[in-house]
Amino acid sequence: MLEMCVLIVFQYEERVDWKKRKAQIKEVQKQRKEAKLIKELERQKQQEAEEREKLERRQNKNGRAYTVSVALPGSVLDNAQSAELRTYLAGQIARACVVFCVDEIVVFDEQGEDAKSVEGDFKGVGKKGHASIQLARILQYLECPQYLRKSFFPKHQDLQYAGLLNPLDSPHHMRMDDESEYREGIVLDRPTKQGQGSLVNCGMRKDVRIDKQLQAGLRVTVQLNKTQIQESKHYKGVVVAPHVPRTEGSLYWGYSVRLASCLSAVFSESPYKEGYDVTVGTSERGSSMDQTTLPPFKHLLLVFGGLQGLEASVDADQNLDVTDPGVLFDLYLNTCPGQGSRTIRTEEAILVTMSGMRPKITAAFSDASIDLLKS
Amino acid sequence: MLEMCVLIVFQYEERVDWKKRKAQIKEVQKQRKEAKLIKELERQKQQEAEEREKLERRQNKNGRAYTVSVALPGSVLDNAQSAELRTYLAGQIARACVVFCVDEIVVFDEQGEDAKSVEGDFKGVGKKGHASIQLARILQYLECPQYLRKSFFPKHQDLQYAGLLNPLDSPHHMRMDDESEYREGIVLDRPTKQGQGSLVNCGMRKDVRIDKQLQAGLRVTVQLNKTQIQESKHYKGVVVAPHVPRTEGSLYWGYSVRLASCLSAVFSESPYKEGYDVTVGTSERGSSMDQTTLPPFKHLLLVFGGLQGLEASVDADQNLDVTDPGVLFDLYLNTCPGQGSRTIRTEEAILVTMSGMRPKITAAFSDASIDLLKS
Ligand SMILES: C[S@@+](CC[C@H](N)C(=O)[O-])C[C@H]1O[C@@H](n2cnc3c(N)ncnc32)[C@H](O)[C@@H]1O
Ligand SMILES: C[S@@+](CC[C@H](N)C(=O)[O-])C[C@H]1O[C@@H](n2cnc3c(N)ncnc32)[C@H](O)[C@@H]1O
Repeated sequence: MLEMCVLIVFQYEERVDWKKRKAQIKEVQKQRKEAKLIKELERQKQQEAEEREKLERRQNKNGRAYTVSVALPGSVLDNAQSAELRTYLAGQIARACVVFCVDEIVVFDEQGEDAKSVEGDFKGVGKKGHASIQLARILQYLECPQYLRKSFFPKHQDLQYAGLLNPLDSPHHMRMDDESEYREGIVLDRPTKQGQGSLVNCGMRKDVRIDKQLQAGLRVTVQLNKTQIQESKHYKGVVVAPHVPRTEGSLYWGYSVRLASCLSAVFSESPYKEGYDVTVGTSERGSSMDQTTLPPFKHLLLVFGGLQGLEASVDADQNLDVTDPGVLFDLYLNTCPGQGSRTIRTEEAILVTMSGMRPKITAAFSDASIDLLKS
Repeated sequence: MLEMCVLIVFQYEERVDWKKRKAQIKEVQKQRKEAKLIKELERQKQQEAEEREKLERRQNKNGRAYTVSVALPGSVLDNAQSAELRTYLAGQIARACVVFCVDEIVVFDEQGEDAKSVEGDFKGVGKKGHASIQLARILQYLECPQYLRKSFFPKHQDLQYAGLLNPLDSPHHMRMDDESEYREGIVLDRPTKQGQGSLVNCGMRKDVRIDKQLQAGLRVTVQLNKTQIQESKHYKGVVVAPHVPRTEGSLYWGYSVRLASCLSAVFSESPYKEGYDVTVGTSERGSSMDQTTLPPFKHLLLVFGGLQGLEASVDADQNLDVTDPGVLFDLYLNTCPGQGSRTIRTEEAILVTMSGMRPKITAAFSDASIDLLKS
């Protein structure tokens, strides 16, 4: 078949005259010029699209403005009966928080004094504080998209049984070919020319050229341009704050993890400038959640106790003079009235409580509630 | 001091005359007679109290009349990543059901055809059906009060990791000295005289003499008499149906376990004469539970799917011609709208769903709802 084609071309070549040849050359030049123009036009279109996107981004603020934080003592891990189950328990907590779109998990120390062990890069592992650090590490490990784990989580004993962990399957955990406006990535250590942004590995077939030059190794949230040039060696995108997928895209984007040296530090070291504006303590000795409505909030905090309940956390905290944990919170709720077991475990209480709170959170942000607040 | 006393008595003895002696003897006889009368009176009182209790029992119907059943495929165990975690998962399911006072757990087979393997005394362990049988066995093991386990659960491979299981801590799991009107027990193999009831081990310091002669080895629910004779060798009680602590005492009394050879058998083999009167299927493709109210019911059934959802269970069931599981149920509910994970695991879905349904169940039995129904 190939040979036949070649033959036909040769026959044709022999017949052309010089006049025709000149016309042909002109035609080719014309086509080249047109192609160049088209390319330029496409570049302009691309630029326009990018401008439009930027504008849209600024206008499209239909995301979720509020955050939900969950706090619990790291000591819950010490209730597990084996190293495998210790890891599994941490995974249960991570999953419970992800199912209910929790934005921040605060792991606090019930021993209070042991503040030193929770500072720095989770490295100062004291024996006492170790449950908190291990819990925080596993929570962070699970939250990290699979394609970034190798970069951010070198082998560590705390992660020895990580293979047993159930995946979180949250929206920001994407497979190679998943389409998404946002992606988590790591800034690559590649030389970049002046005026060009860094390259970021976002777990896609091509790396992403971002708008800024950033330090290699940084974890970043990237918003990919809607229009991409197919032939380009890299995708194009911009770096955004980690809250943008939530506040603008209305996507759940995983949780951040924070260590607190005692219960009071959960409140006082809030990453939100204004702090938490609605706080909820949980206990079977709280008042029934059934009669409770939630006011609209910016930053909701729900606090869980360990084996001995929040009383133990309050007792251990030298900054707290109270004995009744109830006085620390806006609401102190029994989230499972009529429970059929004498005690609900913390990892169960998170699912139970969040499932009960979910419709109340929704209701707090219904139009009616907001109107009521405004009037 | 003792010597002095003895001395005084002797001095006194020497002084009494015979007249006084006779009077003393009469007095002692009188006292004996009185004591006998008092004893007889006490016996009568005891009998009266028992009669009164029986009457009260018949009148006092302020317990919980309705039941809640949960059904799920045994195949969920096959998602566990180790033998230990397989056991732990079964324990999670048991605990989730106990926390929400579930009265019956139905473990159904997703393979459909394999009906043989679920018959009899959980002995015909086929490879395919084994997950269901193991799940059922662990559920039964956990439900059984600790002091009866040795009698009812001989060593078995399915229970190899039972030591890892978290206790259910339900009201019918009592410690030796706990006071309770009801107790679970095992009929003892002891000779009993004609007209006397059997002895039952209820995990207390004394065995309980019941009102009936029953076969040794039977598990029974015993209602203890309110008034017990301190000096008696045994406690006294009567055998009641296992539902009595719930229907008359308003206590949660654990769950029964049932195996079903396929999804349709969950419905058709209901232990309740009238069957289940309200059935709920669960799926992320169901309608939002937030807009749903539950009608009052006698026997509620909630059905969960396995890894592949209820669709897989429907597909495997030769008795079912439908493809959409939704048509099988009165309600087909998404119990976690807006979930932050692509998939909620069955063991999580039970806690999430039951926590969401709890206030709806309460509401269904509020006075207003009942009045509405009557009118
Ligand atoms: C094992 S429980 C604590 C039990 C402890 N003995 C007590 O009485 O508080 C662990 C945590 O689960 C949560 N929890 C358990 N039952 C709860 C309920 N009915 N309502 C709300 N939270 C509950 C609380 O945060 C509690 O501190
Ligand atoms: C792993 S999920 C099944 C997922 C399966 N891929 C599907 O799409 O149905 C296992 C079970 O959990 C329950 N479940 C999961 N998410 C749920 C939700 N949002 N609402 C109600 N039930 C849910 C259902 O009973 C489901 O069959």
